[in-house]
Amino acid sequence: MQDAILATYLIETQHPLEKAAQVMAGEQSAGTFVRVPGETPELLEKHGAKILEITPLEAVSAPSLPGAKPPRQSHSSQWQRARVVIAYPFDNVGLSLATLITTLSGNLYELGPFSGLKLLDVEIPAVFQSRYPGPKFGVAGTRQMAGVFDRPMIGTIVKPSVGLSPDQTAELVRTLCEAGLDFIKDDELQTNSPHSPLEARVKAVMAVINDHHVKTGKKVMYAFNITADLDDMRRHHDIVLAHGGTCIMVNMLAVGPVALRAISQHTQLPIHGHRAGWGALSRHPLLGMEYVAFQKLMRLAGADHLHVNGLRNKFCESDESVIASARACLSPLFQAQDVAMPVFSSGQSTLQVADTYRALNSVDLLYLAGGGIMAHPLGPAAGVASLRQAWDAALQGIDLHEYARDHVELRQSLEMFAAL
Amino acid sequence: MQDAILATYLIETQHPLEKAAQVMAGEQSAGTFVRVPGETPELLEKHGAKILEITPLEAVSAPSLPGAKPPRQSHSSQWQRARVVIAYPFDNVGLSLATLITTLSGNLYELGPFSGLKLLDVEIPAVFQSRYPGPKFGVAGTRQMAGVFDRPMIGTIVKPSVGLSPDQTAELVRTLCEAGLDFIKDDELQTNSPHSPLEARVKAVMAVINDHHVKTGKKVMYAFNITADLDDMRRHHDIVLAHGGTCIMVNMLAVGPVALRAISQHTQLPIHGHRAGWGALSRHPLLGMEYVAFQKLMRLAGADHLHVNGLRNKFCESDESVIASARACLSPLFQAQDVAMPVFSSGQSTLQVADTYRALNSVDLLYLAGGGIMAHPLGPAAGVASLRQAWDAALQGIDLHEYARDHVELRQSLEMFAAL
Repeated sequence: MQDAILATYLIETQHPLEKAAQVMAGEQSAGTFVRVPGETPELLEKHGAKILEITPLEAVSAPSLPGAKPPRQSHSSQWQRARVVIAYPFDNVGLSLATLITTLSGNLYELGPFSGLKLLDVEIPAVFQSRYPGPKFGVAGTRQMAGVFDRPMIGTIVKPSVGLSPDQTAELVRTLCEAGLDFIKDDELQTNSPHSPLEARVKAVMAVINDHHVKTGKKVMYAFNITADLDDMRRHHDIVLAHGGTCIMVNMLAVGPVALRAISQHTQLPIHGHRAGWGALSRHPLLGMEYVAFQKLMRLAGADHLHVNGLRNKFCESDESVIASARACLSPLFQAQDVAMPVFSSGQSTLQVADTYRALNSVDLLYLAGGGIMAHPLGPAAGVASLRQAWDAALQGIDLHEYARDHVELRQSLEMFAAL
Repeated sequence: MQDAILATYLIETQHPLEKAAQVMAGEQSAGTFVRVPGETPELLEKHGAKILEITPLEAVSAPSLPGAKPPRQSHSSQWQRARVVIAYPFDNVGLSLATLITTLSGNLYELGPFSGLKLLDVEIPAVFQSRYPGPKFGVAGTRQMAGVFDRPMIGTIVKPSVGLSPDQTAELVRTLCEAGLDFIKDDELQTNSPHSPLEARVKAVMAVINDHHVKTGKKVMYAFNITADLDDMRRHHDIVLAHGGTCIMVNMLAVGPVALRAISQHTQLPIHGHRAGWGALSRHPLLGMEYVAFQKLMRLAGADHLHVNGLRNKFCESDESVIASARACLSPLFQAQDVAMPVFSSGQSTLQVADTYRALNSVDLLYLAGGGIMAHPLGPAAGVASLRQAWDAALQGIDLHEYARDHVELRQSLEMFAAL
């Protein structure tokens, strides 16, 4: 018998915890509180999900989500939180990512007894690897294609996010290549629009990147956002490949897990996984899922790079959550090479480098910065140099301001941010 | 110039409403609070999203979601809610469902100024119809294939949801066909598992349905859950079609919009769209999106039937929300025939029929019941008859209990529920 799929949830309920967990297990497998014909003890034994652990946590005095139904004879004004581990029989699911997702997070969020329910983590049995080997390129393959080793890859995003023509984009890319960037990406909003058709953008941008490659030996990695209908995504991929491009980008939630998987079967290039829309699934502490779980599903689908936000970001996510996400991306799913490259983005600059390295203890990451590069007083090349210097300092355990004394680009970067 | 895409949001913020709306518009198009090089007035005019309306609503004394960042000099302890309408230029998006979704609901949910943000509705310009014609079958095509007109289609779900073998499923289907059901579906958890491979299930079930068809002239519609990786879904569809099946089912959120779209291009059968996982996007009143918006995106992707929960359901959704969803499914997107069939499910019985009809004023729906059919004291056929009688009563405007006087199946159904 195959190993079960183990899912860990955070729940909040007024019902007895054991009963509440049984409702979850029943809804997502065979068996509910109401026995139906055909639901034999043998069937329940083989196909019923099992509750492995219930760990009571704090109680709260108000429900986190509206609409929950109290027990019939409850007069309690407390809502109990708990961590619950449920084992789903592999035989219910089979080797299907979409069925796995349905089982882990189907009707659960709507179940009457719960004023809060969040998927925290999932343990996926090794048998899935035979069909879903994970990222095709991952960290090692990305480094190989970008020619960047032993340090973080420094990148940026084309801005304005929409509105530039292919030629204007290529012009900006020339500046960014010359500035020494390792990685450039389209914005998540820029896909294949009338004002910047993907094919024209690829041609214009790759002419610049290939030219820079011939001149300098450095092949800058550009993540072209191929997000579209599936046939178009495949065609977009082929266009990128044909012009010597080395990365494709997919808005994972906008296309969905099965389309991402289809692209991963087709691709000869690393997939840069953007998580636009993720906030809807994660913003509430008692609803949706943790990125720790989500990133496993996306790696199963084939994502090589995974956005994790960044420390002290412009969004609402805590630093703890960002670091937990990045660590999870760098933890093997089935084997060492199936790790994905975490992408730090959103208001990142020289200021967050030391803390990022301290928390992650790894240089296997993409570090994307915008303003700190383009607005550096000595120009974009100095902006990139300042970021490289900040990472050098962090790696050598030298204080940022001390290191800045004899590194002018870093010094001017810190002065610029101090003046803001 | 093409018409813009109009999106309506509910927001909650401590920032001035005009500024908060500008942050949304800027994040999701060209232009942010910080001007970047290349962001010319011409580019902003052409590509910047426009704020069309801001309607202040109530203020609340606590933030609905954690993590929001207050304005620098705010001492307010109020969080203001508002309805905001934003117009996204078509030229930013192009004819791509995935890019449309990214634009409508990308990074918005994570933006610092907001302690709540929900997509309420979207107006999709007519140009999308040229590429995304909507449901292939919709209400009219489904009725044609099922041979059911001028009344709701009565259906049920195979239970236990997982664990039955193909032969056991077929045996149950025989009982359900003989009971007079119009429609039967797989559970969302039952796809192509080791204990019930899809092909074996299709063969066993369709043998029964085809046999019943030959004997009675009635072709019961069975929604086979083809949810899987894309190649498998296409193959599953072909198997269903080859054996005379008339419906396929897809877990829309588990596969994602682009895979749903790919199946809709391939299918020769109506797509029964299951929304497992929807609770994560909808359960919080200030996060995610309303089904009114979601169902439009799923119809664009090709869904013919759309689950809407049911009145007085076992889940957490209000009746108002259920009816708003169903009405939205029955409202044209671009033209009269692109309506989808709303699927009422979850604890539905003879008891909710009158209120459902009163609220919806339509019989264009699938009405799924479980216990009320299988547990009817006179057997499943009487269970189906009782539901038909409840709908007859509702259509004729006759009180349920009055109608039950000379309709024994309905009377026994009401007695059974009264005794629970």
